[in-house]
Amino acid sequence: MVDRRNHHLFQPLLYQVATGDLSPANIAAPLRYLLRKQTNCTTIMAEVVDFDIEGRKVILRDGDLPYDYLVVAAGATHSYFGNDHWEPFAPGLKTIEGATEIRSRVLKAFEVAERETDPAERAAWLTFVIVGAGPTGTELAGALSEISNHTLLHDFRNINPADARIILIEAGPHALGHYPKSLCEKAEKSLRELDVELQTETMAIDITEDHVMTKRKGEETEIRIPTHTVIWAAGVAASPLAKKIAAATGATTGRAGHIEVGGDLTIKGHPEIMAIGDMAMFLGPDEKPLPGLAPVAMQQGDFVGARISALTQRRPFEKTFNYKDRGSMAVIGRFRAVALVGTKQISGFTAWMIWLVIHLMEITLFSSRILVVLQWGGSFFLRNRSARLITSETVVLNNRAAATERAA
Amino acid sequence: MVDRRNHHLFQPLLYQVATGDLSPANIAAPLRYLLRKQTNCTTIMAEVVDFDIEGRKVILRDGDLPYDYLVVAAGATHSYFGNDHWEPFAPGLKTIEGATEIRSRVLKAFEVAERETDPAERAAWLTFVIVGAGPTGTELAGALSEISNHTLLHDFRNINPADARIILIEAGPHALGHYPKSLCEKAEKSLRELDVELQTETMAIDITEDHVMTKRKGEETEIRIPTHTVIWAAGVAASPLAKKIAAATGATTGRAGHIEVGGDLTIKGHPEIMAIGDMAMFLGPDEKPLPGLAPVAMQQGDFVGARISALTQRRPFEKTFNYKDRGSMAVIGRFRAVALVGTKQISGFTAWMIWLVIHLMEITLFSSRILVVLQWGGSFFLRNRSARLITSETVVLNNRAAATERAA
Repeated sequence: MVDRRNHHLFQPLLYQVATGDLSPANIAAPLRYLLRKQTNCTTIMAEVVDFDIEGRKVILRDGDLPYDYLVVAAGATHSYFGNDHWEPFAPGLKTIEGATEIRSRVLKAFEVAERETDPAERAAWLTFVIVGAGPTGTELAGALSEISNHTLLHDFRNINPADARIILIEAGPHALGHYPKSLCEKAEKSLRELDVELQTETMAIDITEDHVMTKRKGEETEIRIPTHTVIWAAGVAASPLAKKIAAATGATTGRAGHIEVGGDLTIKGHPEIMAIGDMAMFLGPDEKPLPGLAPVAMQQGDFVGARISALTQRRPFEKTFNYKDRGSMAVIGRFRAVALVGTKQISGFTAWMIWLVIHLMEITLFSSRILVVLQWGGSFFLRNRSARLITSETVVLNNRAAATERAA
Repeated sequence: MVDRRNHHLFQPLLYQVATGDLSPANIAAPLRYLLRKQTNCTTIMAEVVDFDIEGRKVILRDGDLPYDYLVVAAGATHSYFGNDHWEPFAPGLKTIEGATEIRSRVLKAFEVAERETDPAERAAWLTFVIVGAGPTGTELAGALSEISNHTLLHDFRNINPADARIILIEAGPHALGHYPKSLCEKAEKSLRELDVELQTETMAIDITEDHVMTKRKGEETEIRIPTHTVIWAAGVAASPLAKKIAAATGATTGRAGHIEVGGDLTIKGHPEIMAIGDMAMFLGPDEKPLPGLAPVAMQQGDFVGARISALTQRRPFEKTFNYKDRGSMAVIGRFRAVALVGTKQISGFTAWMIWLVIHLMEITLFSSRILVVLQWGGSFFLRNRSARLITSETVVLNNRAAATERAA
């Protein structure tokens, strides 16, 4: 097991680190701790930079590693659709560092607003724009609404945190667009109740230090939203390692760089190389790629484990991977969620309870279930977020002041 | 209340963040949350850079703030005794970022050792040097011993974490040298039982990327300790703001830059300016400066609060600050501590229980007491540390590899 991080991250709850509900350690656990009882497994913290397919070696930044079978599961990162210069102004939510950076920016924005005397500038500091209304963007928008309307309500003297605008921009026609329309509408109703301004069929066409330019589908007018806090929850691209594998094996990659795998999850012409999870493109029976969800990756992990076990024991293995969709869900705020189990649509408090129970069960590996229950209890019922820390190497309070200094 | 951070930090437990026992949010709470019910107090997140004593203004990085009374309590930072170039190789423990940096370095050292094939290099990665055997250094050494002898014991395949050497260097004749000799000896016995190598009357004369040079008092020979992980717990210096105040008021400063204050904690000739806590030098009845401890700062805070309250209401205030020493303590490891209450010396399990109860009572402001009990329960009894995360912007695994790259 090679990873450039020492920890496994439970990404579905990463947004709760960004919003100060949970601490990083609640949703991440050291890989070698998780694997400590599996004595035939060695965990190595190292960065994979390339592959020597001929020589059957993984090239590390500081060495290499021979293999008989190779499973590549390097996941996905966010994509700015060719606008990588937006990244400094619109961090994404894929790593612990990204989550604590977003947490710091959101809290800092309220701090700067408290001191800002110009009403327009103050409003800009109190405007939060989230690009992309998939599950991550929707969950973040709901949590930001809770923060401004409840958590911070009595902490400031010059501003009313409830004046904060939370704008959720979505290029498609609906929030949570991959759900059936009636569930989307329920989610959108929840967002409205939480005072989130959802702007559908709207694209971000430019992001800078002090504004986002948007354009509605079919309209010519560009609209300028003054803001200093933008969160990117839109594009996803496969890990750059997918391209390296593709270049070395001649495999095809999809639109977002995902590497195409066959029915047994191997790469064409290379039965010894398997790719799984968010970086792989597996076409289901309907010729549609499977979604980038944790259950897909977990089931694929089981599959390749069984395959390697069979092959190393010289047993035949002729199965084809078959994804069992047990449902999916998204949480929008306190007591609000939507869930799709088979064709059954669930929303509101029931969906939220299901979400809670499932995530509590899943998180056991990472942290004490009791700790998370208590921490959640604190933030759900007392509406207090315990992990409201602004941390960074250099505390830059006012972006403009810092920019002026740099210019001078 | 002006602070460049948004949070108040409970420094006595900072070493537990460095050792992965607690998460930062367990020991830090947003200032404006702590002060939310004090409606006559405004909290500002800003960096103070200087003072305009004549104009009675605090100069911020991005503005200024007029005052009638000024209380300066900017604390202390670590001092490398003129060897600031040691800092990159020997981070200190004063901030959350310092603590997570030390946590990352310690965990990374075990990761690199696991992959290192050269026995000498592997030993160097498994050598941890702590400079300074005051409370912080002693607590850290004890906790590192727990980590290597218990927490990580079953997690590696190529190394035995218990082979780690933990070296504690102290220039004075004893660990915890400010305690009575018999307590020092008990603490030193505890350290020996934990396999910590205590080297007293020993100075660090050079610290680099791959070694520490030491010299014993009265000896000529310099000893080279190959190591990649050094933690600085030796020198303390007052915040640079003490010098600014001194320059502007003509006040005298002590050896480590502490600013001298009178019996009413004001600065000579300036009854409107008070300095308290770790940056102030208050001479007790025995002409000795008070130690840099939290209880001193807290009692001084109460004193200046009462003084300002009296003066603003035009009541007379003629008191002199008088420190009530209720005792002090240091924890060395699981079930091991020393405490001094008046002239009463307590050690072992009793002292540890007292330490636990006092710190649990103090921490209520910062985090749920139950959360901390459970987290401590986990690490004390299950010997598992839940916050074992390596986080940083760039994951540099092998310092040497990175250095080679830089050189190339």
